[in-house]
Amino acid sequence: MKQEALLTWKGKMEFETELYGHKITIDASPEGGGENKGTRPKILLFTALSGCSGMDVISILKKMQIEPKEFHVRVEGEMAEEHPKYYENMKIIYEFKGENLPEEKLKKAIDLSLDKYCGVAALFKKAIPINYEIRIL
Amino acid sequence: MKQEALLTWKGKMEFETELYGHKITIDASPEGGGENKGTRPKILLFTALSGCSGMDVISILKKMQIEPKEFHVRVEGEMAEEHPKYYENMKIIYEFKGENLPEEKLKKAIDLSLDKYCGVAALFKKAIPINYEIRIL
Repeated sequence: MKQEALLTWKGKMEFETELYGHKITIDASPEGGGENKGTRPKILLFTALSGCSGMDVISILKKMQIEPKEFHVRVEGEMAEEHPKYYENMKIIYEFKGENLPEEKLKKAIDLSLDKYCGVAALFKKAIPINYEIRIL
Repeated sequence: MKQEALLTWKGKMEFETELYGHKITIDASPEGGGENKGTRPKILLFTALSGCSGMDVISILKKMQIEPKEFHVRVEGEMAEEHPKYYENMKIIYEFKGENLPEEKLKKAIDLSLDKYCGVAALFKKAIPINYEIRIL
């Protein structure tokens, strides 16, 4: 299946896109010639990864009849010092809060996401090391 | 340099993050158990790529004293049919409108972005083929 997205320049360093009916603005910092009207683009890689895997995990857990009270997905990445400044690795931290959260089931849901379902993780794993940690708060 | 982003589950398939002070909502379609309160996560990869390279290109062109009247960056990607459904390739289409747009200078700006500056392109190129096209409208 082919997908497409269009990003439109709005002047200076500001760009805008519309994804599934939702506008997202991209901009640089004032130091980078922009006005911070939106996020920097590169960190959207973290949101793509945490969103994709977070959705997998919450729906797999639901099938296991596990519903956390709170669920957060953090992504950390180390950026190269020299151009091109890409992320050389990423770590995903899955944070759960609630009752009835057996760690082996949380791990199973995460492994299913990262090894089988999450297309963003599959792409990134071809390029850089991705690892994860579970935190039960 | 280490970077980090936090995504928080809001219930059902809805998640929210804040990047550089700007909130972004991620949600699934109603068919996927969500309510389309925000974008799907995977297509953010296109915005990361087009935003990163678009910013490079517009600032390199500015140094060359070239300012288009309009500038759009499209990304197309072919998604795998089977899980994990990742993008198997991406094509970036740089669309320019205006006067004084010498194609060899547009090409030079794009090549500098894709080969030297754009960290998102550098990451993706380790995993999948990335190619591009210039359109002068």
